[in-house]
Parts: sequence; C-alpha cells; structure tokens
Amino acid sequence: MKKIVNEDTDCPIKRTLDIIGGKWKLRLISQIGKETRRYGELKKLIPEISEKMLIQELKSLVAFGIVKKKSFKEIPPRVEYTLSEKGFEVLPIIEIMKEFGKAN
Amino acid sequence: MKKIVNEDTDCPIKRTLDIIGGKWKLRLISQIGKETRRYGELKKLIPEISEKMLIQELKSLVAFGIVKKKSFKEIPPRVEYTLSEKGFEVLPIIEIMKEFGKAN
Repeated sequence: MKKIVNEDTDCPIKRTLDIIGGKWKLRLISQIGKETRRYGELKKLIPEISEKMLIQELKSLVAFGIVKKKSFKEIPPRVEYTLSEKGFEVLPIIEIMKEFGKAN
Repeated sequence: MKKIVNEDTDCPIKRTLDIIGGKWKLRLISQIGKETRRYGELKKLIPEISEKMLIQELKSLVAFGIVKKKSFKEIPPRVEYTLSEKGFEVLPIIEIMKEFGKAN
C-alpha cells in the first residue's frame, strides 16, 4: 500500500524552511560561519542582496535564535553577528547543499 | 585575516537553491521519494499548495532533471512522477533538514 499520509500536519521540512528557507538565509548563515561578521561585511559578501532584505533576514535569523547580534555603544554604532549553537546545527545542511550545487 | 571572498561568483548554495529552493520543491521531492506519484496524490499530500503552483514547481523540477514525468496515452490521461538519479541525490539534504526541523 502506498504511503499517503497527509504531511501537512507538523511537517519537519516545512518547519526548517520556515526558519532557514528563502533565497538569502542559508547564504547569510554560510557567510557568518565560524566568523564574526559586521553588517557591511555581509553586504559586501552578498552584493546582490538589498539593504532592506539584509536587515529583514538578519532580524528573522536573530528572532529564530540562529544568529546572535551584539551591539557596541560606540560612535558610529558597531554591530556584530555570530552564529548561535542552533546556527551551527545548520552548517551540515549548508555543506551537503554545497556538494549538491558543485555536482549539478 | 578574516575571509572576505565575494561569494557571488558561482556560489554552490545559490546554485542548489536555484534548483530546489523555494517553499514547495523540497516538500514535493520528499513526497515523491521512492514512490511513483500522480498529480492528484501530490495535491492531497500537500493540500495548501495551489494547482497553479503545483504545476509550475513540477514543471521546474522536471526541467532541472530532478523529477521524471511519464505520460500514458489513456482517457482520462494519466501522468506519473518519479525521482531521477539526480533527484535521489536530494534525499540526503531532505533527511538532514527533517532532523533539524524535528529538533527545532
């Protein structure tokens, strides 16, 4: 009998895509990686992302606990982004996607 | 020295996201899996996808060589979808994303 289980109810892939899906998030996570990145660096690393989208996606990644944001009370203000523990759990997904991208 | 290599040029993650990115493709690939699926089954399995989007995403997956489409000259017409070899290469990405989704 073929498996026709309606996967809508609590689908783990949907859950993952809610957190790290879309055009930019995996690329941002990959660029932060094990480094500490500032906003300007990320903009340089992914030039085709708009300022608005970069701010929005970083905000979402921080809200989901994937990225940690550290602000320094300096003039001009300094903000640094690093991966959280949960963020490091995404790196194996990125590695396997890189392999697929290289092979295809 | 921090790595600031502009990753825009030929980014494997971008390449992978071009092929299997977006809200629906990974879920469709997961639902086809090792089975042979018909359009109606896929619609039942992912009820919130619109007819238009299902047709569009299946068309794109076939065009990228991820999914094979077989049409039977019957009345009513019968169409079956299965994963190609390249499609089977996506299943490990889906497995690792499922693990992440379950854990988060």
